[in-house]
Amino acid sequence: MTRTIVASATKEAVIGFDAPFCVIGERINPTGRKKLAAEMQDGDFSTVEADALAQVAAGATMLDVNAGVTSVNPNETEPPLLAKTVELVQGLVDVPLSLDSSVSAALEAGLQVCKGRPLINSVTGEEEKLELILPLVKKYDVPVVAISNDESGISEDPDVRFAVAKKIVERAQDFGIKPEDIVVDPLVMPIGAMATAGLQVFSLVRRLREELKVNTTCGASNVSFGLPHRHGINAAFLPMAIASGMTSAIMNPLRPQEMEAVRAADVLMSTDRNCATWIRTYREPAPEGDGAAGGRRERRRRRAG
Amino acid sequence: MTRTIVASATKEAVIGFDAPFCVIGERINPTGRKKLAAEMQDGDFSTVEADALAQVAAGATMLDVNAGVTSVNPNETEPPLLAKTVELVQGLVDVPLSLDSSVSAALEAGLQVCKGRPLINSVTGEEEKLELILPLVKKYDVPVVAISNDESGISEDPDVRFAVAKKIVERAQDFGIKPEDIVVDPLVMPIGAMATAGLQVFSLVRRLREELKVNTTCGASNVSFGLPHRHGINAAFLPMAIASGMTSAIMNPLRPQEMEAVRAADVLMSTDRNCATWIRTYREPAPEGDGAAGGRRERRRRRAG
Repeated sequence: MTRTIVASATKEAVIGFDAPFCVIGERINPTGRKKLAAEMQDGDFSTVEADALAQVAAGATMLDVNAGVTSVNPNETEPPLLAKTVELVQGLVDVPLSLDSSVSAALEAGLQVCKGRPLINSVTGEEEKLELILPLVKKYDVPVVAISNDESGISEDPDVRFAVAKKIVERAQDFGIKPEDIVVDPLVMPIGAMATAGLQVFSLVRRLREELKVNTTCGASNVSFGLPHRHGINAAFLPMAIASGMTSAIMNPLRPQEMEAVRAADVLMSTDRNCATWIRTYREPAPEGDGAAGGRRERRRRRAG
Repeated sequence: MTRTIVASATKEAVIGFDAPFCVIGERINPTGRKKLAAEMQDGDFSTVEADALAQVAAGATMLDVNAGVTSVNPNETEPPLLAKTVELVQGLVDVPLSLDSSVSAALEAGLQVCKGRPLINSVTGEEEKLELILPLVKKYDVPVVAISNDESGISEDPDVRFAVAKKIVERAQDFGIKPEDIVVDPLVMPIGAMATAGLQVFSLVRRLREELKVNTTCGASNVSFGLPHRHGINAAFLPMAIASGMTSAIMNPLRPQEMEAVRAADVLMSTDRNCATWIRTYREPAPEGDGAAGGRRERRRRRAG
């Protein structure tokens, strides 16, 4: 049973075949969020704070933290900004973090201040990345997301993506990093552009689990890019990926339809013991309108508002 | 590629690994619907007619037709009533039918009047059933649902349920019936009562597809029996079963959440070519409020009403 352990200062979480699906909240990421990028550059962390609290309240297992506010001079801006954001988020919530950067100095700056055992996001199969990131992973004894592309880009051939993942797992072992500390992202393509994108991921996740015995993750919402009513596609994709063996995803926990799908999948995979989380979240409110119950009512109110 | 062909007088449908998921509308069934049973006994088919039209409008691929209005003297009442109901439904809609009865004389009465190539629902692994139903299946050259229980009841051991399914497929072959005309129901238990019910079905469906190369079906909503917010569980179960290889289900097509999950799963399994059905159903209405678009708007209106 592969188990990837992540932790905050006070709280441990498990990404694993026998654990509830690990929801990694994606919101603290200025990529494509111009307003957030500008705020963070100006030292205004109010949106970061709100996003941290809201995502944990919505049920995120972990939070991804990215401080890529600019592509101009990331090597200068990102290390101090990621460290600051990590410290700030840690002061607000006690879930484990995922440190997200393409700048290795930013990852190390984040590692220096991050309590517990964060996830590093990410390494790829590119030689330069492997040589920069794997030593950090070993030095700080943390798990890492391994994205299955390399110098030649993202292959449309799932066998090539599997081979890249296998290479990363093997190279990590050369550094003394165990396969259970590698969480492979098999890369999810938009289904509207590539009709086999879903089938590829389901089959890849199964192979990664059965042959490499590693945990897996993905940027789930990418699958529905360009289609109408994306949340409906996402809400089917997540259970299908989970049934195929996927154990975590970087996703938006503020979307009730996707979170409901994940919670239902946990029930059906038998990782929500006695359906306890499901029943607590979705039981009908008491007839008198007792505010204590209320998962569904709460969501409806939010939708209506 | 296993393909089970069903047909009405004018319309063919395929249950198959490369076909959109086959939704078999479950509503025309007086079991547990006292009012409907009383109506049908009195010769009032208004609910049957409304259910036939509504289910096809909602996207059912086929309709199940059951006339089990009483357990007192089913051998007398069911044959003429099933035949009459079949004729009536055939006069209203042009989708293929599933003839649903535990009374073999009723199945034969239905077969005598049913146009096209209906599905017989069902045979089990019980000797008596095999000897009664398989000759009918052969005589009328129709496909049949094979439920994986036998004289000893429903086993909680999935290996036993697989063995029962295998026995039925083999016995059918002795009668000259091909495996592609057997649609196995691996039996779905309530997840609230048996925590492994989901895992069992996913693994059984995969084995039935890979080892016996048969199509599969199930009574999908049984999985959520006893839990709050059942549609959320059903809407995750269906995509998970589909990702595992399930090719049809007997379900309620009037439930938008479950139908949306099935349509999304078709997109992700690459059986909804160019996402055409998805886009037609869920595209945003034109800004002027053009009535022609409207899948989502229609559903919202119905929900709100």
